[in-house]
Amino acid sequence: MTNVAPMKGAGKTQSQFIQIIPGPIEVTDEVLFANAHLSMSHMSPNFARVFGDCIHMTRQLLYSEDAQPFLIAGSGTLGWDQVSANLVEPGKNVLVLHSGCFADSFADCLQTYGANVDQIKAEIGGAVKEADIENTLQVKKYKIVTVTHVDTSTAVLSNIKAIPNVVKRVSPDTLVIVDAICSVASEEIQMDAWGIDVVLTASQKGLGTPLGLSILVASQKAIQVFENRSTPVTTYYGSWKKWLPIMKAYENNPAAYFTTPPINVFHVSLTQIIQGSLHQEVSRCVTKAAEEIGFKGVSLSEDIQANGMSALYFPDGFTASDIIPRLLKKDVVVAGGLHASIKGQ
Amino acid sequence: MTNVAPMKGAGKTQSQFIQIIPGPIEVTDEVLFANAHLSMSHMSPNFARVFGDCIHMTRQLLYSEDAQPFLIAGSGTLGWDQVSANLVEPGKNVLVLHSGCFADSFADCLQTYGANVDQIKAEIGGAVKEADIENTLQVKKYKIVTVTHVDTSTAVLSNIKAIPNVVKRVSPDTLVIVDAICSVASEEIQMDAWGIDVVLTASQKGLGTPLGLSILVASQKAIQVFENRSTPVTTYYGSWKKWLPIMKAYENNPAAYFTTPPINVFHVSLTQIIQGSLHQEVSRCVTKAAEEIGFKGVSLSEDIQANGMSALYFPDGFTASDIIPRLLKKDVVVAGGLHASIKGQ
Repeated sequence: MTNVAPMKGAGKTQSQFIQIIPGPIEVTDEVLFANAHLSMSHMSPNFARVFGDCIHMTRQLLYSEDAQPFLIAGSGTLGWDQVSANLVEPGKNVLVLHSGCFADSFADCLQTYGANVDQIKAEIGGAVKEADIENTLQVKKYKIVTVTHVDTSTAVLSNIKAIPNVVKRVSPDTLVIVDAICSVASEEIQMDAWGIDVVLTASQKGLGTPLGLSILVASQKAIQVFENRSTPVTTYYGSWKKWLPIMKAYENNPAAYFTTPPINVFHVSLTQIIQGSLHQEVSRCVTKAAEEIGFKGVSLSEDIQANGMSALYFPDGFTASDIIPRLLKKDVVVAGGLHASIKGQ
Repeated sequence: MTNVAPMKGAGKTQSQFIQIIPGPIEVTDEVLFANAHLSMSHMSPNFARVFGDCIHMTRQLLYSEDAQPFLIAGSGTLGWDQVSANLVEPGKNVLVLHSGCFADSFADCLQTYGANVDQIKAEIGGAVKEADIENTLQVKKYKIVTVTHVDTSTAVLSNIKAIPNVVKRVSPDTLVIVDAICSVASEEIQMDAWGIDVVLTASQKGLGTPLGLSILVASQKAIQVFENRSTPVTTYYGSWKKWLPIMKAYENNPAAYFTTPPINVFHVSLTQIIQGSLHQEVSRCVTKAAEEIGFKGVSLSEDIQANGMSALYFPDGFTASDIIPRLLKKDVVVAGGLHASIKGQ
């Protein structure tokens, strides 16, 4: 394994550090070994079976009977492009619920593809209030509402069980899109029962696999909206017009080609998660232990504190340059602040 | 390694088959072990150094002094989106040189982002003639000319040393884009000396790494064209406006964030290729041996036969269903025909 050397740093292999960061998360030995498997032909019957299983299991993970998974080489961000370019036609209205800085990026993506974006911004550490969503939906018609399930910059957990109810009551045609990049397999998500139209995520977070896979699941209602578009889809790489027949073919096990999928590793991890349990409660332990020594959670109350990650203010009087190098000396890697308004705190 | 079981098929592990397909290609043990490395934080100094090295080495691989590499999670197809959305503004003219069916797909991608596409189609097994390129450029102004270096459906090798000369002589502002998905590290490509503006490829072909990385290198002239656009970029995930500062930051070794990169494996393979030699001549041996037993190469002449892959007609009187299952019985996996006009042959 001499050529692995460039991955080492400061005389210490990566596995000797304890990484407490919001992803990429740790990966089990089984997943790592699967990733070391020779690449299969993406057109072979063996691979078609693996890919078909992945599609089934992704649907199962989100408690859906009939939603349509899309598994495409990319990062979580590619899910934003898929929503923007397949579900929102240029000039349509979109409502973005803001509970941290990833809502600003999703809004930027939607605008790139021609959407008119309004945002409801919660105070820092808070989630958007249902009454505010209801009032906003009453005055304007929106094609979609987007919500960040857990925003990595604040660890705020939005109530994605309640929000679709509000939307359905006031504006039944509006689709509910959940950015679950930081929550799938850490928080419970019941697509069908809760009435969610799109869940999007990535492989390196709760699913515990290496980087490189964009995972998006769309309800049949969302697929209908896509199929009834009156203008052409505005992306090629993320186009559901290209991908929908491919995903349907692989699910029935014959291979089909649009572009080459990066799937080696995915099967093992999904199997582990479905056979096991969610990675919950870890974050509450970390937050609680940190609060005992003077840190403070960013989330304003415990009911909106994520189960899968923690965002903490430094103790009063301390800054990042006091804390982070000290943790590194103890081989603990943490991520600095992401939210521009509270970055130094 | 019990959980690798789902990747096996018919009681035989994948590595017991001999895959003679146009990619994914075989991967060395060093690369596989690197892929089994724990995921690093993409914001850590160790990872920044690895990523910076990858950017350097990608430039070196294409014999360029100052071209700008973009390494993004995705497949080769994402390179087409990057060209279409960053270099061609809606309504601009594009000339696609067609030496196999991947030119049709690239044209489809360009049209998705609003380009007006003309194609010059070579006869099947031939490359587009320089005189035809010259005549076409004389009657209309094109923003870019695209050429497939090696088309996977025909194994035709286009002369990417001569074509930029023709373009520069007749239409010096027109950028030359080389789709080198099936040729990087199999065929020689000298970006600076030959005057190529964009080379795009993917990780699972000549570079011999697992699937999942879109690799694109743009000349400074192309970067200037991008920076002088008069309309906004029409993609988010593949936007150079987002990626250019990230790639520049990583090259100087501080980490920067747009979206999470899938880079674990890349370093090792590039090091191996740059220290070693190209995978040339393999295809000529395969073609020659196959011709001795009755197959016939699709390429019309030897000077346009790719060095890194072979496309063959079946012997007279034989079809795919005669040949492919027999090879499979001998544990040899080949890919069926891709070009619609000659698919069965």
